[in-house]
Amino acid sequence: MEPRPTTDSPTGSAAARTTIQLISYGPSDFQEREIDDITQLPSYLKQPDLVHWLNVDRVDDVAMIQRIGALFGLHPLALEDVHHVYQRSKVEEYDGYLFLVVRMAATEEDSLVTEQLSMFLRQNCVITFQEGRPGDCLGAVRDRIRRANPQTRRSGADFLMYLLLDASIDSYYSPLEQLGERLDVLEEIAEAPRARGMIGELHAIRRNLLTLRRAIWPLRDAITGLLRSDHAILQAETRFHLRDCQDHTVQLIDLSETFRELCSDLRELQYANINQRTNDVMRVLTIISTIFMPLSFIASVYGMNFNTDASPWSMPELGWPYGYITVLGLMATISVVMMITFWRWGWIGRQSDLK
Amino acid sequence: MEPRPTTDSPTGSAAARTTIQLISYGPSDFQEREIDDITQLPSYLKQPDLVHWLNVDRVDDVAMIQRIGALFGLHPLALEDVHHVYQRSKVEEYDGYLFLVVRMAATEEDSLVTEQLSMFLRQNCVITFQEGRPGDCLGAVRDRIRRANPQTRRSGADFLMYLLLDASIDSYYSPLEQLGERLDVLEEIAEAPRARGMIGELHAIRRNLLTLRRAIWPLRDAITGLLRSDHAILQAETRFHLRDCQDHTVQLIDLSETFRELCSDLRELQYANINQRTNDVMRVLTIISTIFMPLSFIASVYGMNFNTDASPWSMPELGWPYGYITVLGLMATISVVMMITFWRWGWIGRQSDLK
Amino acid sequence: MEPRPTTDSPTGSAAARTTIQLISYGPSDFQEREIDDITQLPSYLKQPDLVHWLNVDRVDDVAMIQRIGALFGLHPLALEDVHHVYQRSKVEEYDGYLFLVVRMAATEEDSLVTEQLSMFLRQNCVITFQEGRPGDCLGAVRDRIRRANPQTRRSGADFLMYLLLDASIDSYYSPLEQLGERLDVLEEIAEAPRARGMIGELHAIRRNLLTLRRAIWPLRDAITGLLRSDHAILQAETRFHLRDCQDHTVQLIDLSETFRELCSDLRELQYANINQRTNDVMRVLTIISTIFMPLSFIASVYGMNFNTDASPWSMPELGWPYGYITVLGLMATISVVMMITFWRWGWIGRQSDLK
Amino acid sequence: MEPRPTTDSPTGSAAARTTIQLISYGPSDFQEREIDDITQLPSYLKQPDLVHWLNVDRVDDVAMIQRIGALFGLHPLALEDVHHVYQRSKVEEYDGYLFLVVRMAATEEDSLVTEQLSMFLRQNCVITFQEGRPGDCLGAVRDRIRRANPQTRRSGADFLMYLLLDASIDSYYSPLEQLGERLDVLEEIAEAPRARGMIGELHAIRRNLLTLRRAIWPLRDAITGLLRSDHAILQAETRFHLRDCQDHTVQLIDLSETFRELCSDLRELQYANINQRTNDVMRVLTIISTIFMPLSFIASVYGMNFNTDASPWSMPELGWPYGYITVLGLMATISVVMMITFWRWGWIGRQSDLK
Amino acid sequence: MEPRPTTDSPTGSAAARTTIQLISYGPSDFQEREIDDITQLPSYLKQPDLVHWLNVDRVDDVAMIQRIGALFGLHPLALEDVHHVYQRSKVEEYDGYLFLVVRMAATEEDSLVTEQLSMFLRQNCVITFQEGRPGDCLGAVRDRIRRANPQTRRSGADFLMYLLLDASIDSYYSPLEQLGERLDVLEEIAEAPRARGMIGELHAIRRNLLTLRRAIWPLRDAITGLLRSDHAILQAETRFHLRDCQDHTVQLIDLSETFRELCSDLRELQYANINQRTNDVMRVLTIISTIFMPLSFIASVYGMNFNTDASPWSMPELGWPYGYITVLGLMATISVVMMITFWRWGWIGRQSDLK
Repeated sequence: MEPRPTTDSPTGSAAARTTIQLISYGPSDFQEREIDDITQLPSYLKQPDLVHWLNVDRVDDVAMIQRIGALFGLHPLALEDVHHVYQRSKVEEYDGYLFLVVRMAATEEDSLVTEQLSMFLRQNCVITFQEGRPGDCLGAVRDRIRRANPQTRRSGADFLMYLLLDASIDSYYSPLEQLGERLDVLEEIAEAPRARGMIGELHAIRRNLLTLRRAIWPLRDAITGLLRSDHAILQAETRFHLRDCQDHTVQLIDLSETFRELCSDLRELQYANINQRTNDVMRVLTIISTIFMPLSFIASVYGMNFNTDASPWSMPELGWPYGYITVLGLMATISVVMMITFWRWGWIGRQSDLK
Repeated sequence: MEPRPTTDSPTGSAAARTTIQLISYGPSDFQEREIDDITQLPSYLKQPDLVHWLNVDRVDDVAMIQRIGALFGLHPLALEDVHHVYQRSKVEEYDGYLFLVVRMAATEEDSLVTEQLSMFLRQNCVITFQEGRPGDCLGAVRDRIRRANPQTRRSGADFLMYLLLDASIDSYYSPLEQLGERLDVLEEIAEAPRARGMIGELHAIRRNLLTLRRAIWPLRDAITGLLRSDHAILQAETRFHLRDCQDHTVQLIDLSETFRELCSDLRELQYANINQRTNDVMRVLTIISTIFMPLSFIASVYGMNFNTDASPWSMPELGWPYGYITVLGLMATISVVMMITFWRWGWIGRQSDLK
Repeated sequence: MEPRPTTDSPTGSAAARTTIQLISYGPSDFQEREIDDITQLPSYLKQPDLVHWLNVDRVDDVAMIQRIGALFGLHPLALEDVHHVYQRSKVEEYDGYLFLVVRMAATEEDSLVTEQLSMFLRQNCVITFQEGRPGDCLGAVRDRIRRANPQTRRSGADFLMYLLLDASIDSYYSPLEQLGERLDVLEEIAEAPRARGMIGELHAIRRNLLTLRRAIWPLRDAITGLLRSDHAILQAETRFHLRDCQDHTVQLIDLSETFRELCSDLRELQYANINQRTNDVMRVLTIISTIFMPLSFIASVYGMNFNTDASPWSMPELGWPYGYITVLGLMATISVVMMITFWRWGWIGRQSDLK
Repeated sequence: MEPRPTTDSPTGSAAARTTIQLISYGPSDFQEREIDDITQLPSYLKQPDLVHWLNVDRVDDVAMIQRIGALFGLHPLALEDVHHVYQRSKVEEYDGYLFLVVRMAATEEDSLVTEQLSMFLRQNCVITFQEGRPGDCLGAVRDRIRRANPQTRRSGADFLMYLLLDASIDSYYSPLEQLGERLDVLEEIAEAPRARGMIGELHAIRRNLLTLRRAIWPLRDAITGLLRSDHAILQAETRFHLRDCQDHTVQLIDLSETFRELCSDLRELQYANINQRTNDVMRVLTIISTIFMPLSFIASVYGMNFNTDASPWSMPELGWPYGYITVLGLMATISVVMMITFWRWGWIGRQSDLK
Repeated sequence: MEPRPTTDSPTGSAAARTTIQLISYGPSDFQEREIDDITQLPSYLKQPDLVHWLNVDRVDDVAMIQRIGALFGLHPLALEDVHHVYQRSKVEEYDGYLFLVVRMAATEEDSLVTEQLSMFLRQNCVITFQEGRPGDCLGAVRDRIRRANPQTRRSGADFLMYLLLDASIDSYYSPLEQLGERLDVLEEIAEAPRARGMIGELHAIRRNLLTLRRAIWPLRDAITGLLRSDHAILQAETRFHLRDCQDHTVQLIDLSETFRELCSDLRELQYANINQRTNDVMRVLTIISTIFMPLSFIASVYGMNFNTDASPWSMPELGWPYGYITVLGLMATISVVMMITFWRWGWIGRQSDLK
């Protein structure tokens, strides 16, 4: 379970490992800096015609977060949400800035994990806080800025926010595709006689879909909220692109719900197959038992040691010339009758079905 | 899984295979052209009193799409949706034109597949982009125009859009009917003793219904959106026909939901039958075992080789005059008692139930 | 599956078999005519102070429908819906008249079938089209008019429409009651040991409920739409009666949903019973096997033919004076121990449970 | 199934058995009368400063209902709903009075039954019609009036209506509590090895919950409608108390839904237990069979009667000095190896699990 | 089942055990008193610039509740809700004060229990009533006040109410985390061969989740109601903090729904495993029976005592020189053929799967 958002959470292990990166750009400018000393930050932000993106990787250093918050005039409750890392995706409007929480997806040892990305959007800067997992899905955005993509360079901080949001949403496609492929594989082997691992695999996939669902439904609500918001900081062109983001989240939800249904269907299919196979196994057992039990019984009867000399009523068959032949014939008759009965009931005749 | 709508998708294999068809018509005019050289297009479109339908088959040639987009002044985000072919059905209003995405259905090797049809509706022309699967469901519309159907020829481009939308919706009826027929067959054989393939077949039908559902729910939402839209390009008469389209999608949804329920019911029926048959098989086995095990045991006892000469306590029955007859009688009694017990429990007496 | 509403459907077999009936009435007038020649119709309709009810039985003669449509000035799209007989219940408002589609229920060989009734309500006449199944549920309305029911005779065409709508809704009660009775029977036999046909019967009932649901949900929506409509043709008193119709549809939905839940519950009950019985059968088998297998084994051991003369180690028990008695005692002891064990496990002692 | 609300229902058996009671009260007055002759009623109602409660027990005497209706000026459609006793709970506003239908609960032989209570609220009187089951849940209200509860005596007819409504809602608590207790018992015995009656008992509880649900959901809607209504007859203070009624219905719904979920969970628990027990039984059978079948086979081999004198290859083991000992050793070894295998597979070693 | 909110409930056991605590504080004042004599209360409350929190622990002394209610002018219906302790969470606005009911969670012997906390918020005081379970979750709030937290001390009574509400919501996190951990444990052992207790444990967890759900859904609605309320007593800053409370309840709901789904998935997994294991057990039994039954039959045949001297047709094999060898060879052949068949069917060869 993810940690509960407590009011007094541990301060984290090592403030030294928090990395802060500042990217500043304009139509023709581009600077990328690692910030070691946070006191230098104000001097870097002085150029009002540039867009600044301050990315903080790790949120366990509360003091650091509060200093950055103070620098940009951010509300303490929002900073608490930054620090307490399991938050649902949401959008909150503050005076002069927007606060967004979204969750980025990644695959870690076959399971889908999500990482919180907290974003503040101010007039000409975006401040992002990542939970601190290694790697992120924002490389594409950085490359776009570095490669001087004209639309990106000319647009304001709200467009940067859109790009980050879009990259976060895009991060769900690849894990979802992997789940889809795993389902395809399962579907192919569902009919195989001993698809034993399938039950566990299906359970694992469902768990991942559950995680995904918890992350993506609130995301859709958050984006819808953003679209309806009339906060001055969002420009018309950006709103237009946000509509595209919304389309993508709806598509992700669609797809994951489809996968969930498919999981259920495969599970049912698997149950039916197990039951069918149990039925088949039972039928083999019953056929064999039903044929051999009467035969063995007959043989046992003639294995009894009644003294044929003591009385003419004591197993006289044993001395008959054709006694043995008759008994064998009786046994053969019983077998054939049984076989025909089973064939009529449809129990045999398609032995190749039995697997 | 359908490909995710990426920003940088492969450019496709062969631009040469993209076919472009232009149909221009008016109350008394009709021209049908294959366009090889896109630069000639503007000259063909010069007649303002005709309705033009430009149909592009294949969407993997990005450059071609962008050139056509530039020609008609279409928005880059819409053109991206044209190219990235798994889009949900939707309607987007732009300044001066409407952008529709719908999905057409087709049956391919027993499975229902859908193909994206992107439509732009301008004042006097409709531009459609098809994914490029062989064949389409728009032949009826072409025929209607060719055969100089008066209503069609007199009406504007928005009526043409309605016709195309209607043809797309109609394309779902035939696959859905096929699914209905397959379900009818399954329902008939559900009671058969070895309806083994049924489980897999039901799963296949459910998959198809899942695909259909994903295609048709957004379609309904899109048409509802279209009906509510007050875009100037839609005339009153066309809106009236769109209401009919909406009726059809609701009916399709109705029917597919009914089929889904029927699938579930048949699956449950099948489970119950399998369990019932296992129960029957077990009962046969138990009857046979319960009758023959005691009998065989008795026979075995009298097959023991205790030396009757060594002691009067060693199996004196073997030497009794009526020993053998008595034992046979005992066996017969046991069998009869067992039989009566099973008959009382209702296990036998209706053997014809066992299949 | 019901036929899809196609644009080009077959013209039907025999126009001659279409029957047209005209009932005209006022506070003190009453005429009932079979119309053979449609051209005479206008003359019959000339009395403006009477209410006319034109009932057409069979909708496969397109030409006939179109001629009647032309006579009353009905819209082609509505006439298409009349002809293409699987329509969802709906209400459509046209200029000067209302168009209603409802579905009447009937029981045909234990299954519930529905028949489309299309109604046009004009100022002083109602035109109804029935699908053409033998019999209808409108006899009560005819009788009411014939018997000169004062409220009916004095009211206008909209009251007649209400009566027809009410009769259609009433037609669902009787099949639903039959389903309820079949469920009651099933519930009583659910506990019986071999309630085998139950699974199929439950499935049949669920199918009927599914059909009913598809017919009645849209009906409720249609009536709600009618109640909200402010079409001038509906008088206040009639609206009041329509509220009663709505109550009835809600009650029908309520009841059918309750039946659906009951079906599910009975199915689960049946599953549990099958499983429980399998468990019982298995227990009997296991008890018998567990008791007799060790006994038979012991008897077999002493049936071995080791040569007691060849060696003192070869089955000396066979020559012991009390060997046989001892072995029988051993067997009895084993049986008793097993019995006690099974009794402790609760497997025996309540044999009467086993059915 | 409850009878359908027909237009022509049987007139009932005995009008003589209809009992009519009139309670009239004011701050300082109280009169309680049995009304035998309905024509005397108007004279009793003449005191305008008293509140009158006319309670009619049995609704099968249509003529009586219509006479009372005429006396108070009640609408025929409402009177029909009074007579046709299976109505959903509802509130209907008429000019000058309110019409309420609610359902009272009672337990009858372990099953929950509901009885229709139709109420008309006029300016200074309440007319109630009960279905006619013996006993009712309104005794508490009568006692409150008799004991001269000041709030009750001073308030108007709308407060009386609230009291009756509240008593009807309260009538659901006791049957629901009984169901809760039955569920608690089931939960305790769920783990017992032969909790056989449980399946049927769960089904019975679910049926009751289904009945309750059908009664109480419409009741909540009706009360919500009442709260939203701005009918002049309802005073502010009464509306305030109705909010309390609404709280209670929501709580009843909450509780019954919780019970429904609990039923489902118990059913699943029970299924799992049955399956687990079948598995245990099978395991015992398999262990016994697997151990004794090979042993019996070996014993059978040495019970064959090949003539050891005829050939040295004919079962020479029988004459070996240690043949018998060796065979017994072999059998012991096989048993031990099997036991160890089963112990490794976890099939034995926790025999106490087997119940 | 929780007791129904009756109008005449027992007065409780001991008014003497009701404890009343009054905490009064301001920016620089702090007083904490145990109130023994309720008549002294008015004198303590005279300082208008302090915030007073009166906490009453036990609600079974109706007289006491009514006296406190009279002191603060609280409505009788609200006081009834205080006394009748199973209420859904809700917010009710009265003239001059707010009435809140929330439920606090606690874990008691592995099951989640909830305790009702009724709060009245007046201008400068909060009156809380607890059900009277030992301990509460409000200690953190008391400590915050005692430790002179500046924000708390400076803010008004509405902020105190927020703190109490927040503490109540926080009380759900710890039991929910425990459930999550129990689910994690179950998930790990799900694959173990004899995860027998799992079914019962899952049921227990589901019960707790059901309890939690019943408590927390109404809580969310109540807080939403509070946020929408425009009651003058709530200040803007407090509303802001209430939004945080709402976030937390939504997160709790999210989490508990995820756990519910996980429970269902684990249950299904467990079912599938039981069925799979039954299948495995059956397969072992069938393999053993199928191999040894024919062999035992053959051995039995040659154990028959037909008199070889009486006729040349009586089991001449017994005298053949290689008879015994041949029979042994036949048996070996049968075993090998059976083994190969089972191996082909995939029944053996992966014995390590069998657990």
